[in-house]
Amino acid sequence: MQQVAHHAGVSLATASRVLHGSGSRTVGEELRRRVEAAAQELRYVSNAPAQALARATSSVVGLIVHDVADPYFGAIAAGAMRAAREQRLMVMIAATFREPGLELEYLRGLRAQRARAVILAGSGTADAAATAELAEEIAGFEADGGRVVCIGERGPDLDTVAMANRAGGGLAVRGLWELGHRRIGVVSGPSELLTVRHRLDGARRALRALGAPLPLRAVVEGDFTRAGGRAAAVRLMTEQPDLGALLVLNDVMAAGALAGLRDDLGLAVPTRVSVVGFDDVPFAADLSPALSTVRLPLEQAGEAAVGLLLEPPGDAPRRVELAAELVLRDSTAAV
Amino acid sequence: MQQVAHHAGVSLATASRVLHGSGSRTVGEELRRRVEAAAQELRYVSNAPAQALARATSSVVGLIVHDVADPYFGAIAAGAMRAAREQRLMVMIAATFREPGLELEYLRGLRAQRARAVILAGSGTADAAATAELAEEIAGFEADGGRVVCIGERGPDLDTVAMANRAGGGLAVRGLWELGHRRIGVVSGPSELLTVRHRLDGARRALRALGAPLPLRAVVEGDFTRAGGRAAAVRLMTEQPDLGALLVLNDVMAAGALAGLRDDLGLAVPTRVSVVGFDDVPFAADLSPALSTVRLPLEQAGEAAVGLLLEPPGDAPRRVELAAELVLRDSTAAV
Repeated sequence: MQQVAHHAGVSLATASRVLHGSGSRTVGEELRRRVEAAAQELRYVSNAPAQALARATSSVVGLIVHDVADPYFGAIAAGAMRAAREQRLMVMIAATFREPGLELEYLRGLRAQRARAVILAGSGTADAAATAELAEEIAGFEADGGRVVCIGERGPDLDTVAMANRAGGGLAVRGLWELGHRRIGVVSGPSELLTVRHRLDGARRALRALGAPLPLRAVVEGDFTRAGGRAAAVRLMTEQPDLGALLVLNDVMAAGALAGLRDDLGLAVPTRVSVVGFDDVPFAADLSPALSTVRLPLEQAGEAAVGLLLEPPGDAPRRVELAAELVLRDSTAAV
Repeated sequence: MQQVAHHAGVSLATASRVLHGSGSRTVGEELRRRVEAAAQELRYVSNAPAQALARATSSVVGLIVHDVADPYFGAIAAGAMRAAREQRLMVMIAATFREPGLELEYLRGLRAQRARAVILAGSGTADAAATAELAEEIAGFEADGGRVVCIGERGPDLDTVAMANRAGGGLAVRGLWELGHRRIGVVSGPSELLTVRHRLDGARRALRALGAPLPLRAVVEGDFTRAGGRAAAVRLMTEQPDLGALLVLNDVMAAGALAGLRDDLGLAVPTRVSVVGFDDVPFAADLSPALSTVRLPLEQAGEAAVGLLLEPPGDAPRRVELAAELVLRDSTAAV
């Protein structure tokens, strides 16, 4: 309400009189119109019960992910919850199944519940309309006094924990190159996700810099699930049998790829094909063979997101940059 | 309030007058005392803003788990969210890190937010004081019109999705027995959890019935984490080197046990030691070697819990019983 009053150039008392009908004095037509316009512009919601409850529910932090069964988000959530718990904040996790509409719905629900803050942990998408709608909802949430932090790129105006997706794609490619691999294929993820685009872009750029641009036919799209990774890897190796190494853009798909190469195609890993995953989820080291992968500090990302939302809002958006690291295990070998 | 009025033997209008000060007529001292006593007994919370918000937030279903990074809960959550989504319910997940105090805190928080229902997916504990406190909080939540469903045993008065933990323990032992194993050890979980007690009890009973009671020295306790399972399995096989098979009471610990047997002790699985896990989490089939395990229908359990809370409350508590199944893969072999 303070923001509305400021925006309309009126006193807090006048804004309150217009918006809540409080006080006994009447407000002139011109002032009323200015307050109402400011309220609309700032998306002020006159919700007296919600205001009364605000203190009671302000310990809630919403964490919006794509998929709770995906260990990538499990690790991020574990980090966020550990950090939140030290501050006696209650973390509530919601999953969108990668539907931008559901993400909006949860964000609105958390706003209605007067959540103190929201962490958007799922990747942004290339869908411009959905992105614009989300930006508006975020602005409304923040106008209500809530805080929003993103893990991964969502827009230049937001506090962000940036993951080294591009750098990681490059690390994987250069690691394979150093092992002597020249025919490298990529099992990519859902192409609308910015995370996927950045990982793929990093791999592409690195290959171009090495003088061996990635051909279109050496890339297939999976859906970030185990079964999807299996099908995509089998298809790629069937259509491009001369490939000697696969970069699979998340570990969950890489688990499926290892099973498909072994059980569907009878291709030995790593002697016939080397496989590199992405994320280093907890089970990656236990796969058969133990998965070489690009490690992102997932738990640390969750912790950093909570750290950002505990700080008071800054004049400029803040960024925490987290590095990637290539971990070579048993699924990669020299040519 | 209707329940309070009924309990106090007064009209709804009288109860409302006492509790909310509504209406213009005064209420006699005796009636007032009866209503207040009934309100206290039924844990009636006079929370006007919360009541006003009740409709707005009633699409929230809380899902309380032990650990979001544990794939056991990931699978349950995935099932619950799928079912909830069809009903346009918003699922919010909270994790307790197995602290009964945190479970209570989240339950209170969800009550304050007027959540429509809560699914308690973590195991109950053998801590009688914590269990009594939880029962009281559940009663309060239900008195407010909320629904509570448990996955696993929590008490005879609650709607429950029962997991076949005892039967599963028996299945694992009999499966190993049929492969010729007579020296079977158990890597158990946190002993305060009822889930662990039931799994262990099922294994014990089956061995007793087969004429080979489980010796105390053949059981070690792990903490349901990968690292804990690894340490426990290594300790057990070091202290009891004549064991030829291990039942590990969850798959996450079994992943650690496989790594420990191979890398720390150099014991081949399954030729030297057979290993059976419990749960059949998604990565179990991808472990090295692929893990034999007791499959519980985890996603189905999440769906069934949502199904129960969508039904109107019954006269008697409802139970959905889900069966276990032994899945033999590559981590077990005949003696």
